Amino acid sequence: MEKKKNISMAVIKRLPKYHRYLGELLKNDVDRISSKELSEKIGFTASQIRQDLNCFGDFGQQGYGYNVRELHSQISSILGLNKKYNTIIVGAGNIGQAIANYRFDKAGFNLVGIFDANPKLIGIRIRDIEIQDIDDLQSFLKNNHIDIGVICVPKLNAQKVCDELVQGGVKGIWNFAPVDLNVPEGMTVENVHLSESVMTLVYLLNQKEE
Amino acid sequence: MEKKKNISMAVIKRLPKYHRYLGELLKNDVDRISSKELSEKIGFTASQIRQDLNCFGDFGQQGYGYNVRELHSQISSILGLNKKYNTIIVGAGNIGQAIANYRFDKAGFNLVGIFDANPKLIGIRIRDIEIQDIDDLQSFLKNNHIDIGVICVPKLNAQKVCDELVQGGVKGIWNFAPVDLNVPEGMTVENVHLSESVMTLVYLLNQKEE
Repeated sequence: MEKKKNISMAVIKRLPKYHRYLGELLKNDVDRISSKELSEKIGFTASQIRQDLNCFGDFGQQGYGYNVRELHSQISSILGLNKKYNTIIVGAGNIGQAIANYRFDKAGFNLVGIFDANPKLIGIRIRDIEIQDIDDLQSFLKNNHIDIGVICVPKLNAQKVCDELVQGGVKGIWNFAPVDLNVPEGMTVENVHLSESVMTLVYLLNQKEE
Repeated sequence: MEKKKNISMAVIKRLPKYHRYLGELLKNDVDRISSKELSEKIGFTASQIRQDLNCFGDFGQQGYGYNVRELHSQISSILGLNKKYNTIIVGAGNIGQAIANYRFDKAGFNLVGIFDANPKLIGIRIRDIEIQDIDDLQSFLKNNHIDIGVICVPKLNAQKVCDELVQGGVKGIWNFAPVDLNVPEGMTVENVHLSESVMTLVYLLNQKEE
């Protein structure tokens, strides 16, 4: 498959949604779908869908539409979901435990370690993985190849943990701490800022009322 | 304060970030800040900052910059953080419990109920709130004024819960289920789609490697 560069973040952010909808069509034994039909389900315009997918290759066929199984599998491969990513979670509080228990296997998540500073949590097992002392994080990173680090520690400790992950060779960080992390160029960070999400909700809710 | 309409979602989504940075400046006893200094901290350009804030009023003063306390308080009020929002969480699994334990009080969150279908969870208390049977959700909504419903149930049940919340008079929905909910016009929904977030991370991580 030919690779196209400079794809906008807006398009990239829509890919997982295509993946999800196509996965549901597959489950319902739908073989093919036109951009118009897909548009009615997913809520983007048909022309937007064609444009988005054209960024990555020549998928549809005029008069036939998209082959659902093929497009789903192509998007999986574009997203990189067909590989495995060794992942550790740092911070085994509520969010950390929720992430550990969540089934992200579809995204290639291979959870291999959980770390926390709280002696009450160290030694407990979540999905068969023992929570380790955060003091052992650096040596763990030295001895294991880790692709993704999930930061679920309080905001005051987040940058320190981030620095250790970067130094330990982690390539991507999924950050749940309410801070913007400083990372070297080329490092991938995806933030989930729950407070910002709920503030947006509250703002929109107030607009409707006035 | 004069209200301006038709503010883009992109600007709205940046407001919580301004709020967070200004809150930190306040904590560090910073009285005033220029758009240039704020730009260096927050990572938006100074002109972007001036443009964003101008959507909501006339805050800065040429040669003085922004009064940190005043701007922070104005943004709080624009976001609607100075009010209280009666909130219930439906689904007391990992994510639901994490949200219940998280401190969203700053966003005006007033957690008044948690619901689940699992008999093992019903009756347990989280932050002094007893988990109630989801079968009692409708009557609870009838007897209580609820502003925000947080949906943390599995995706197959999400639409049903959403319909009950809408019918029960809830005004805003914070949705953690990996589905796009159908809601009547005028209903506010803010999605946190964790699978999509991690897929974006995985995609970007793969781009870096090639």
